[in-house]
Amino acid sequence: MMQKLAEAIRKKEAPVCVGLDTQLSLVPKRITDAAYKVYGMTLEGAGEALAAFNRDIIDAVCDIVPAVKVQVAMYEQFGIPGMQAYRDTVTYAKKKGMIAIGDVKRGDIGSTSAAYARAHLGRVQVGGATFRAYDTDIITVNPYFGSDGIEPFISVCAAENKGIFVLVKTSNPSGVEFQDRRAEGSPVYEHVAKAVAGWGEDVRGEALFGPVGAVVGATYPGVAERLRELMPHTMFLVPGYGAQGATAKDLKPFFTGNKDGVIVNSSRGIIGAWREERYAHLGKEAVGEAARVAAGEMIVEVNAALS
Amino acid sequence: MMQKLAEAIRKKEAPVCVGLDTQLSLVPKRITDAAYKVYGMTLEGAGEALAAFNRDIIDAVCDIVPAVKVQVAMYEQFGIPGMQAYRDTVTYAKKKGMIAIGDVKRGDIGSTSAAYARAHLGRVQVGGATFRAYDTDIITVNPYFGSDGIEPFISVCAAENKGIFVLVKTSNPSGVEFQDRRAEGSPVYEHVAKAVAGWGEDVRGEALFGPVGAVVGATYPGVAERLRELMPHTMFLVPGYGAQGATAKDLKPFFTGNKDGVIVNSSRGIIGAWREERYAHLGKEAVGEAARVAAGEMIVEVNAALS
Repeated sequence: MMQKLAEAIRKKEAPVCVGLDTQLSLVPKRITDAAYKVYGMTLEGAGEALAAFNRDIIDAVCDIVPAVKVQVAMYEQFGIPGMQAYRDTVTYAKKKGMIAIGDVKRGDIGSTSAAYARAHLGRVQVGGATFRAYDTDIITVNPYFGSDGIEPFISVCAAENKGIFVLVKTSNPSGVEFQDRRAEGSPVYEHVAKAVAGWGEDVRGEALFGPVGAVVGATYPGVAERLRELMPHTMFLVPGYGAQGATAKDLKPFFTGNKDGVIVNSSRGIIGAWREERYAHLGKEAVGEAARVAAGEMIVEVNAALS
Repeated sequence: MMQKLAEAIRKKEAPVCVGLDTQLSLVPKRITDAAYKVYGMTLEGAGEALAAFNRDIIDAVCDIVPAVKVQVAMYEQFGIPGMQAYRDTVTYAKKKGMIAIGDVKRGDIGSTSAAYARAHLGRVQVGGATFRAYDTDIITVNPYFGSDGIEPFISVCAAENKGIFVLVKTSNPSGVEFQDRRAEGSPVYEHVAKAVAGWGEDVRGEALFGPVGAVVGATYPGVAERLRELMPHTMFLVPGYGAQGATAKDLKPFFTGNKDGVIVNSSRGIIGAWREERYAHLGKEAVGEAARVAAGEMIVEVNAALS
């Protein structure tokens, strides 16, 4: 799947991912009104509003952007109907030819990670029947439990051609508190990076990128070169662009020498573009149009920073 | 809520929690048959089987055990109907007077953690209406993002009288890979422990235990004394008892000098007891009866180890 992602990035010339961290406050009134008219101001109404908004975004960007990253927390807060909206969004993005990254940051002891892996990447058995609960292409995973909490994900990745992005260096300010502790000569995140480079190497074979990717925040460009060196065959998911403060010129060291291996995520900068003055000329509540223009601009900026 | 948990433990004289890590393979045929008869071999059928099994366990232990820990991964793998079973189990346990711990291990950057906090501990707004998605009493949280990923949970804990257990030292073998790296003179888990001791101190006030607890695996008794010293006002959730190898005699150093501050979890040892030869005399597929006897034995063992 990482190989497929790398190819989709190359084909669209767009190392960019749209983050569907969709909150109700980002959804314009015409969409919430339509949803509440059918379902009322209920969790179902909220779920439908999020899903409808996401369909508009996906329709608008699917031919120019290779992937979406769907932040499950934004859906989980609306309970069961929220999870239905999460699932519908994943399914819709895939139907439109995009790669669906579930930003779920799961991770636990081995037997529990195995259940998460079945939930998000694999299949589950009920008596004689088999089902896929969410069927995302790639999910994010937390490394705090170490190898035995990661291996069940890798097994499912191998069997199902899926991928995971393991948190290495997160984009938030206090990510440094534990991740940057210097342990035995190097910060904890480098120890995680070395583990990430090893995990999934058996599965990688001859492919340029193995099934185990890394989350490396755009907000720490100073460490990107070292992390790329430690993880030469690892796809990087790079959050923190735009609203969190990183700019295109920060991105170059995250890429490989061949200018690949990276997908940069932007959430609010794209899905919230319709609220910005600079896109007002596109029309009132022009969710899709503004997202498409903003995504296009981001693609140009990121590519320019690479050349 | 941690105070309420400590009181419930004292009242029932049972520092014990039943882990509802319910897998279909743990559910006897009479329960799966009944569920499949109504819903077929579907995700709905699986969800109903898990929920019905959990009701049997809760009915059997609710007067002797203060809390359940519901492992969300086991439900998440059955998609939307699985999450319904998770929610129903939490609701049922609370209705039966138990404290419901959601073992969700969530954690992300601040704005995302805020959504998880609303989902599991707080309330969410839809237009003019307010809803609670899951309404667990306490959840488990991953510390990899540092303070700004934890604070949104603490705010909701303060507003709603809820609690969190932050992963400090996990019970699995490879937990040591990153958690035990020696950083600036002490292992990473001690740095996390110090942070845990500080988080939520403002909210604690005069209470013996603040809203921020710690997950400390029973499988590492050698570090318990030091962790208790670093976190004197912290409730410990202690997994790893039984199936993961820890025994009652390992538990003493986890407790405070007053023999409180701990809840020990057992999952398979209690919910899987009905399959064990030693409980066969209780009847065929005697899920509740076997769980009650096994829980009672565990309570006696843990209390004996304390005296």
